[in-house]
Amino acid sequence: MSEIRWLSEREQDIWRSFLSATLGLTDALARQLQRDAGMPHAYYEILVALSEAPDRTMRMSELAGVRNSSRSRLSHAVARLEEAGWVRRRDCPTDKRGSFAMLTDRGYAALEAAAPGHVTEVRARLFDQLTPEQVEQLGEISRAIQRGLGTPPEVTCPSLTAEGRAS
Amino acid sequence: MSEIRWLSEREQDIWRSFLSATLGLTDALARQLQRDAGMPHAYYEILVALSEAPDRTMRMSELAGVRNSSRSRLSHAVARLEEAGWVRRRDCPTDKRGSFAMLTDRGYAALEAAAPGHVTEVRARLFDQLTPEQVEQLGEISRAIQRGLGTPPEVTCPSLTAEGRAS
Repeated sequence: MSEIRWLSEREQDIWRSFLSATLGLTDALARQLQRDAGMPHAYYEILVALSEAPDRTMRMSELAGVRNSSRSRLSHAVARLEEAGWVRRRDCPTDKRGSFAMLTDRGYAALEAAAPGHVTEVRARLFDQLTPEQVEQLGEISRAIQRGLGTPPEVTCPSLTAEGRAS
Repeated sequence: MSEIRWLSEREQDIWRSFLSATLGLTDALARQLQRDAGMPHAYYEILVALSEAPDRTMRMSELAGVRNSSRSRLSHAVARLEEAGWVRRRDCPTDKRGSFAMLTDRGYAALEAAAPGHVTEVRARLFDQLTPEQVEQLGEISRAIQRGLGTPPEVTCPSLTAEGRAS
């Protein structure tokens, strides 16, 4: 086993500050969405991802990549969203491997109603706290961390892409 | 209602990159700890906080502040840690308002066994991905976010501080 490179005092301070900031931010955003829109942050992100996809439809495996979510956690979330009438599941006509989730009009309306409060909270808790330079730094740092984690592979169903819609 | 300040394209990209990076990092650390040490990250943080407190003991309300955790979530975690024999609860002799959690020797040993793998993962996934300058920037950014969230008030029990231990 190779030698452990422990964190220095300085690194430990920064690491704890980062953990506390991200957990605190996550909690603040979750509280706002639950209080004002009655949904967890993970559900909001699923609705956003679907709203931007062609035909407002994504394969479940793609959707799992959005939040690095496990299939079982995502299945549970989509089942709840289906009960609320915000999402419908359907099968991919050209690929039997997976099912797809589609945002309904009611789901789109719920997202539109939730967005202003959520964006206001994100701005107040994050962007308003940072200088424009720090915002750019945060973007660079986030991309570096993402590279270190590896990005999930992109999976698409041809019949649901722009090409598929045109046919 | 005041006008909504929506995110610009650039801000939205940075926000999503930040979300994806922090969620991905959180998941990677959680997986490593669960796989190699059989504990969730929240439990690890509770053990760390207790290990550094005077008498390895903290009031439950202080402990909740460590992870911005709700009292009910913390109670659940501490109950599990008590079952594992890693933590014991006790009452504060001078304050009836709350109970305290104390790290046991077995809990300390579990933390010592888990620490090398966890630190190695934190270094590989975060510090090794950033330049020294970016590490400092991340520290500044994290502190700015923390200020915007407000810091939890510090609560101590006099009989459990260094002064209390000396008596």
